[in-house]
Amino acid sequence: MIVQQYKKMLEGKSVIRELSEFAAERGKEIGYENVFDFSLGNPSVPVPQQFNDALTDLLQSKSSIELHGYSPSLGIPSVRKKVAESLNNRFGMNYRAEHIFMTSAAAGAVAHALRCVTVPGDEVLAFVPFFPEYRPYIELTGAILKTVPADKETFQINFEVFEELINKKTMAVLINTPNNPSGAVYSADTLRRLAELLRSKEKEYGHDIFLISDEPYREIVFAGVESPYVSSFYDNSLSCYSYSKSLSLPGERIGYLAVNPACTDADLIVAMCGQISRGIGHNCPSSIIQLAVAEVLDLTADMSVYETNMNLIYNQLIELGMSCVKPGGTFYIFPKALEEDAASFCRKALQYDLILVPADSFGCPGYFRMAYCIDTDKVARSLPALRRFIKDNYH
Amino acid sequence: MIVQQYKKMLEGKSVIRELSEFAAERGKEIGYENVFDFSLGNPSVPVPQQFNDALTDLLQSKSSIELHGYSPSLGIPSVRKKVAESLNNRFGMNYRAEHIFMTSAAAGAVAHALRCVTVPGDEVLAFVPFFPEYRPYIELTGAILKTVPADKETFQINFEVFEELINKKTMAVLINTPNNPSGAVYSADTLRRLAELLRSKEKEYGHDIFLISDEPYREIVFAGVESPYVSSFYDNSLSCYSYSKSLSLPGERIGYLAVNPACTDADLIVAMCGQISRGIGHNCPSSIIQLAVAEVLDLTADMSVYETNMNLIYNQLIELGMSCVKPGGTFYIFPKALEEDAASFCRKALQYDLILVPADSFGCPGYFRMAYCIDTDKVARSLPALRRFIKDNYH
Repeated sequence: MIVQQYKKMLEGKSVIRELSEFAAERGKEIGYENVFDFSLGNPSVPVPQQFNDALTDLLQSKSSIELHGYSPSLGIPSVRKKVAESLNNRFGMNYRAEHIFMTSAAAGAVAHALRCVTVPGDEVLAFVPFFPEYRPYIELTGAILKTVPADKETFQINFEVFEELINKKTMAVLINTPNNPSGAVYSADTLRRLAELLRSKEKEYGHDIFLISDEPYREIVFAGVESPYVSSFYDNSLSCYSYSKSLSLPGERIGYLAVNPACTDADLIVAMCGQISRGIGHNCPSSIIQLAVAEVLDLTADMSVYETNMNLIYNQLIELGMSCVKPGGTFYIFPKALEEDAASFCRKALQYDLILVPADSFGCPGYFRMAYCIDTDKVARSLPALRRFIKDNYH
Repeated sequence: MIVQQYKKMLEGKSVIRELSEFAAERGKEIGYENVFDFSLGNPSVPVPQQFNDALTDLLQSKSSIELHGYSPSLGIPSVRKKVAESLNNRFGMNYRAEHIFMTSAAAGAVAHALRCVTVPGDEVLAFVPFFPEYRPYIELTGAILKTVPADKETFQINFEVFEELINKKTMAVLINTPNNPSGAVYSADTLRRLAELLRSKEKEYGHDIFLISDEPYREIVFAGVESPYVSSFYDNSLSCYSYSKSLSLPGERIGYLAVNPACTDADLIVAMCGQISRGIGHNCPSSIIQLAVAEVLDLTADMSVYETNMNLIYNQLIELGMSCVKPGGTFYIFPKALEEDAASFCRKALQYDLILVPADSFGCPGYFRMAYCIDTDKVARSLPALRRFIKDNYH
């Protein structure tokens, strides 16, 4: 028999998928350039040319077996070493190659980290609003997702409620900064307070609590915002990174898990990830992509467009009297809808060819997400539609 | 706390890893070209030049977003369509794109297939000798691996014992033809008999029994040997393929799961695989590698060297009076050791710089595996060492 658990998952409708299908259909009618599609987090800026050049150079200079032969399942040793060195240089850490596990982007890193530190029945705390995929990542391991309601003034951490919810069964805390969907960047103060609280709870409960830090947007931070390196605040940190956003490489499925060298069993965790991979049939990213990424570790795509877009949209929303925390990074913005039911709000927006995503699946009803990783020209052209939408319906 | 299950797995010593480390160390002393390393199934022949050319062309002709943007998690639609068409042309099937799920090679395909059709406590039958990784693939889903002892005369299926072992809890049967490690290729007669037996047991038990067919060696078949397409014999077939061996691309982690269109819930299984991926953090292979493979679907690397090597070794083994079923395909050969303890036999071989793998982890004590995906020159140079080893110790 087909396993019912996964069959059932298919019945759950994905709002984002429906919206993006609507956008594609509507695009056929009026031209996709006239559909203001803010639904998807697919980077719009090209990969740095140096990445494609590195790929071409590799194809011309290396043997077939060096390029396409088996990578050890933990990643190519020279690549792991370069990743460790880059992190050490940038963030004052002391990683060695043994602390780096190459993964299928941040999704693979988070999934492995969760399997390292939880068994079925354990609780994992995450903070609203959260990336909806955290639910399957966590629940399909058998662990239980508990969510901490948002501090809607800042989208930093709501420590009062967090302290009420954390308990002896909490084995991991999953954070995401800069945050999808709020765009908030946790401050040094937030991270210090989080670390102190976790350390005191570790003592109280007599077991480790691991901080799984999902950081695909680490490099997308706007002017004047500090973006501290999470792992430097808390020893039991497992950092999950992806090159999908910083290098505009989401299709290549490459990232890593970096285990803080001071973490409990730090020297074992990456090797354990290799064992976890044996069970899920994942054995690390493409070898040639690993080699090419290692040549451009400290580069990013030209991401200045995201800040330009953010300012255009933020200023327009404020001018319209909407409530919105100004994003510190990412390519998302997370305003409050103008009616309680954000799905209804977003449905009305469709009549103005505006594709907005209601935030119920992010754990935050009444809000919506706009992904502005699109051309600035299109963002500018969307503003009159946004004004008409709000004025026609809510003024 | 770190999860003990994976920590324990680390303590289990991998014989193959130990042997390959020995080979590397010994190589430093006497030059690796003088170590007759038959331990690893890493293809020795280069990828077809057309694959690297396709990659280069893509880099020059496509936009960054076409090349490196998100692939849908089931695979790029045009690639899935081409895979279906190629299978239909070659094997007279009627797959559509919806029946093809792009995976991290055969490992990913088998892991997804197992999760589609088993829940914890279900039994999966596999046949000795079997690829040792089947154990973690199956057991880490919570299912139970039951193994059917070998027919050591032919390494086809031992149907008498199979009929005794199959039971109401058997939800899947996992086969591997051409077989690692025996090199046996299941005949049409074997597959017909297997299909008949499974169909009658489905009726008897009142539930589906899925045939998970692991086929990474499908294209490596020697002269005069027929290699029938498994799925054409049995509707409830899930075919697991990898380009690792046929295109010499093991590091690129690309393959697919092909669901027989007549399989129960055929139209749902691939979509379910997408849901399974959400839990394990795998979201399909590299996009540029998918696009490049789609350009060379019906090509293979020049694999004639494997048959040449097989004949050299097989003839030598027979001349030495050893017992060995002649391989019909793959790049493995699977002789009987000359003492009961194959580990002891292989340990003695090390003194002759011969790296042979005892088959205990393949479920077949008393046998050993040689992987001859190495230069023919090296195979030829290994034969005198093999002769000395056998004559010194066993004649």
